[in-house]
Amino acid sequence: MDQQSVTMSDVARAAGVSVTTVSYVLSGKRAVAPDKREAVQKAVAELGFRLNTVAQSLRTKRSRTVALIVPDIANPFYAQLARGLQDAMRPERYHVVVCNTNADRAEELLYLDDVVRRRLDGVVITPQWLAPEDFDAVRAAGIPVVVSSDTGPGSLDLVRADSHEAVDQAVAHLARQGHERLGMLAGPAGAPAGDPRLELYRAAAGRHGLDLPAGLIVRGKHTREAGAEGLRRLMSRKKPPTAIACVNDRTAVGALEAAEQLGLAIPSDLALIGHDDIEIASLVRPRLSTIRYPAYEAGSTCGRLLLERIAGRAGRSEVALRTRLVLRETT
Amino acid sequence: MDQQSVTMSDVARAAGVSVTTVSYVLSGKRAVAPDKREAVQKAVAELGFRLNTVAQSLRTKRSRTVALIVPDIANPFYAQLARGLQDAMRPERYHVVVCNTNADRAEELLYLDDVVRRRLDGVVITPQWLAPEDFDAVRAAGIPVVVSSDTGPGSLDLVRADSHEAVDQAVAHLARQGHERLGMLAGPAGAPAGDPRLELYRAAAGRHGLDLPAGLIVRGKHTREAGAEGLRRLMSRKKPPTAIACVNDRTAVGALEAAEQLGLAIPSDLALIGHDDIEIASLVRPRLSTIRYPAYEAGSTCGRLLLERIAGRAGRSEVALRTRLVLRETT
Repeated sequence: MDQQSVTMSDVARAAGVSVTTVSYVLSGKRAVAPDKREAVQKAVAELGFRLNTVAQSLRTKRSRTVALIVPDIANPFYAQLARGLQDAMRPERYHVVVCNTNADRAEELLYLDDVVRRRLDGVVITPQWLAPEDFDAVRAAGIPVVVSSDTGPGSLDLVRADSHEAVDQAVAHLARQGHERLGMLAGPAGAPAGDPRLELYRAAAGRHGLDLPAGLIVRGKHTREAGAEGLRRLMSRKKPPTAIACVNDRTAVGALEAAEQLGLAIPSDLALIGHDDIEIASLVRPRLSTIRYPAYEAGSTCGRLLLERIAGRAGRSEVALRTRLVLRETT
Repeated sequence: MDQQSVTMSDVARAAGVSVTTVSYVLSGKRAVAPDKREAVQKAVAELGFRLNTVAQSLRTKRSRTVALIVPDIANPFYAQLARGLQDAMRPERYHVVVCNTNADRAEELLYLDDVVRRRLDGVVITPQWLAPEDFDAVRAAGIPVVVSSDTGPGSLDLVRADSHEAVDQAVAHLARQGHERLGMLAGPAGAPAGDPRLELYRAAAGRHGLDLPAGLIVRGKHTREAGAEGLRRLMSRKKPPTAIACVNDRTAVGALEAAEQLGLAIPSDLALIGHDDIEIASLVRPRLSTIRYPAYEAGSTCGRLLLERIAGRAGRSEVALRTRLVLRETT
């Protein structure tokens, strides 16, 4: 018999159960008594029945696919986050499509629109330029969204780093070492969510008596190239900093390379501290001091929140993952 | 008007064109005269028409989604490959779902089955344990497959590294430096496709008069942990090697760390050479000598072959990307 012509009714007849029971077994949506389940599975195998999931998707309006929208999957932080998300969605048989925005607003909007058009089941997103109203269409379509970022549009589920304590400890450490002028390689200027890591450093510098003047804050992308360029700019200032905090490890690694090219000794001429503790942080030399934010755990937490939402949770969830200062050789 | 109730006919009426023309504009399948295209786009915007892509998918049997099936997206090589593939598929509006197999045969089979059940439009896969007949169902379903690996089931499209020349140069370089005993951290034993990189080193060692005895070949996963463990095993041999070739950079970086822990001086006590030239290869110290295989380019090439297949190309394609020896500080 042609596979496509075998129907659920055929399976139900062969298994001696109702079509509803067949549907439950195939969708996994409800528990079915073991003997009935086995009978269905046997009939499915014998008849060569294949569920038409596209047709099923149309009926249930479910694609069993979620989107991960991030700046760049080739950035190891997002690759780890993706893996955490995928591992969390896997037991529920959700596929994860990965979309790269290059931190470009037009791309962010385009992928959100795509999610609605394709009726995907959910979104995990690290937005750079999106305002709360940019999520209106996704929300109107009833598609759950989880934001992975330090801050996000207030109404959406959020998984974020809580670096308050770790940044305070980092700055206290720098103060004890006699640093007075702190510089920062911060994120891009003008992001709707602001720059929470910069704000944390600003506040901690104040508490510990370090100077973090506006002239020593360089804004840029979260890339190695931006880190290298930013370091060169900071070190060409009339009064350069003796320590630089970086928005993430990629920026810090770029800064480290540029410092090496300038002949600076790390950490005696200049201290550097990153954020995230991606794999390369402990592989570069000198080993990078950083603030550990576990990307894999962030991704799996996003997956957990998304699954809860898909299952019907109504209230907003926010999970703050506590980060931790890791002192290595650059401070 | 409710978006869902707007039909293509409404759009066609408002734009003063045929439904077929609307369909062409929306699908991008055929060129449409600029004035008609603009009229359709204007009508779509005014009426708030939204193409129901799930329903469309049912009619066209196309999901406009392809799968990338790799051991682990958190491995930077595959993250780069994914990015290359996504960038290639992007202009044709294909989504890429990323599936991690952990180089496990059961997972590889499960995801291939999933691709058939979901009627995805194509697959790019780096298989570890699959035999040619494992692709029968995907093939029977008419779903194009591109293999990204050094070798693959003969009948499928293949994008591979051509490291013949680079491995020869690497071994010649080691021979000139006076090395006589070469070890190898190879891939897992028993893979259906064999271990082409090991074979290349074996042949080159023969040509250049180096010894690569069976006792100095350690098999393992392509991970840092396996590399570290393999190095310890090799260096505990009665006659340890003076140079070790590694199946990839992750293995080499693990070996480098283990060598450091054993107090070995690199490269004077032991030379190490990797494969791929992922980002960390040039960030570790000493910088890793390696054979450059551009993952991004491999991914975008897979995307190009897949799009050709989807567009109807019948003949098999194989693209061998020439690799290149990069001598740094570990040789």
